[in-house]
Amino acid sequence: MILIGEKINGSIPSCGRAIAQRDEGWIRRLARIQEDAQADYLDCCASVKDGELETLRWLTGIVQDETDTPLCLDSPDPRVCVGAMEFCRKPGIVNSASLEPGKTEVIFPAVAGTSWSCIVLLSGEQGIPRTAADRLENFRRLMDRAAKAGVDAGRLYVDPLVESLAVNPESLTVFAETCRGIRQLCPQVHITSGLSNISFGLPMRRTLNLAFAVLAMEAGMDSAIADPTNPELMGAIFAAQALLGQDEYCMEYIGAWREGRFGPTGGKKG
Amino acid sequence: MILIGEKINGSIPSCGRAIAQRDEGWIRRLARIQEDAQADYLDCCASVKDGELETLRWLTGIVQDETDTPLCLDSPDPRVCVGAMEFCRKPGIVNSASLEPGKTEVIFPAVAGTSWSCIVLLSGEQGIPRTAADRLENFRRLMDRAAKAGVDAGRLYVDPLVESLAVNPESLTVFAETCRGIRQLCPQVHITSGLSNISFGLPMRRTLNLAFAVLAMEAGMDSAIADPTNPELMGAIFAAQALLGQDEYCMEYIGAWREGRFGPTGGKKG
Repeated sequence: MILIGEKINGSIPSCGRAIAQRDEGWIRRLARIQEDAQADYLDCCASVKDGELETLRWLTGIVQDETDTPLCLDSPDPRVCVGAMEFCRKPGIVNSASLEPGKTEVIFPAVAGTSWSCIVLLSGEQGIPRTAADRLENFRRLMDRAAKAGVDAGRLYVDPLVESLAVNPESLTVFAETCRGIRQLCPQVHITSGLSNISFGLPMRRTLNLAFAVLAMEAGMDSAIADPTNPELMGAIFAAQALLGQDEYCMEYIGAWREGRFGPTGGKKG
Repeated sequence: MILIGEKINGSIPSCGRAIAQRDEGWIRRLARIQEDAQADYLDCCASVKDGELETLRWLTGIVQDETDTPLCLDSPDPRVCVGAMEFCRKPGIVNSASLEPGKTEVIFPAVAGTSWSCIVLLSGEQGIPRTAADRLENFRRLMDRAAKAGVDAGRLYVDPLVESLAVNPESLTVFAETCRGIRQLCPQVHITSGLSNISFGLPMRRTLNLAFAVLAMEAGMDSAIADPTNPELMGAIFAAQALLGQDEYCMEYIGAWREGRFGPTGGKKG
């Protein structure tokens, strides 16, 4: 599993306050704990109304001063994403492109021929399609644009999109069907997702999020935008990897436990 | 999910001691907490060398005095299972038959034409088959015997069998393939399993057991021999039901949370 640490995001109230107050220590701590928890990328989302690019310059500067983990540049504005690429000392992920006008046109040429990757959402001009077939049609159109722009399929992180189960009882089943379709059409792309949309408006969200992660991995998801410091979640992810035949003789599972990445005391005291 | 409460079992050391000492209070408590946690059946396994039937008479008497939940009579000796049926005030489950000589021959005639159910293990004459194809061949043979004995398919709880992931890295994938095959061949049978064999010899067993439960449910398992008083496990089971489209608009999930069946404080304080 490729983990994109989700904690540096201005839409999370405590982090939004830290960004507004330019609280460098707060941001350093979020970067540090996620690197220590072995995140593969650190998402950086300013979530500010004005001066987003300048805010990202500040944010990415601190995070890169504190850690060596590559970044995932997260903005609804594709020009901000592309503009922030030059702040980065190593290639990361642009978050995100979609069929929304102006997205792929700006982002795909910027990542083509580089070592950068790119998240692509399967939303269409009318929002999130209800059916897997319609999401897969959007996938085909996006892959077509990526190929024309010279972006390798292996650099794409496809997000099939998740609605809350409280709104759409078929949310997981449509997500899983979309994942299986993607794997059939193009095995080399990554599939990623946030883990918390599924539980919006429901109690004990982390219980649903955890079961969602396990079922999404079974359907072919190989990346997640998640909190790598959450031991329950990490335990479920390592367990699912082992169960799904992606971790022979549980070597990674046992290693992660020994390192204290999950379990009440972890293997550190065990 | 049909839950068979696993806690009254002489092979669990504390329960074994209670049985040896005829500690009625201990057994009452195990029965009470599992009924309160809404187990559908209570497994009763004496696990003694001598006097197993008499021990089961004592055990089932106490459990039925304390609760109204039907029993799951659990013995390696099919004659003990069948003999203990007459101690029961209402029909339950016999645990278990298999292709092992003398099992179906004794158990199937005893449950045929009654409201009793029966667990059938897919082990063969040479132990647990490695492949799903071989387990399904055993399933076909057992279904054939059940049909000839007049046992309805809907009264069978098929256990596809689980090895530890530490011994067989394909344990879950073979289990899941077997489940899918069973559902295709005979949709009306139940599929059940213990949840803890998968993690034998590995650390943080409950983490693996929980992910196993979620993935087994996805493959078609609709029953489990498990601890209904484990809130983490119950949360994962209710979450999986909701995610897999078996709980429209999460009504059961929300209800179970309100009743305090999972969650740190449950909905009782929420």
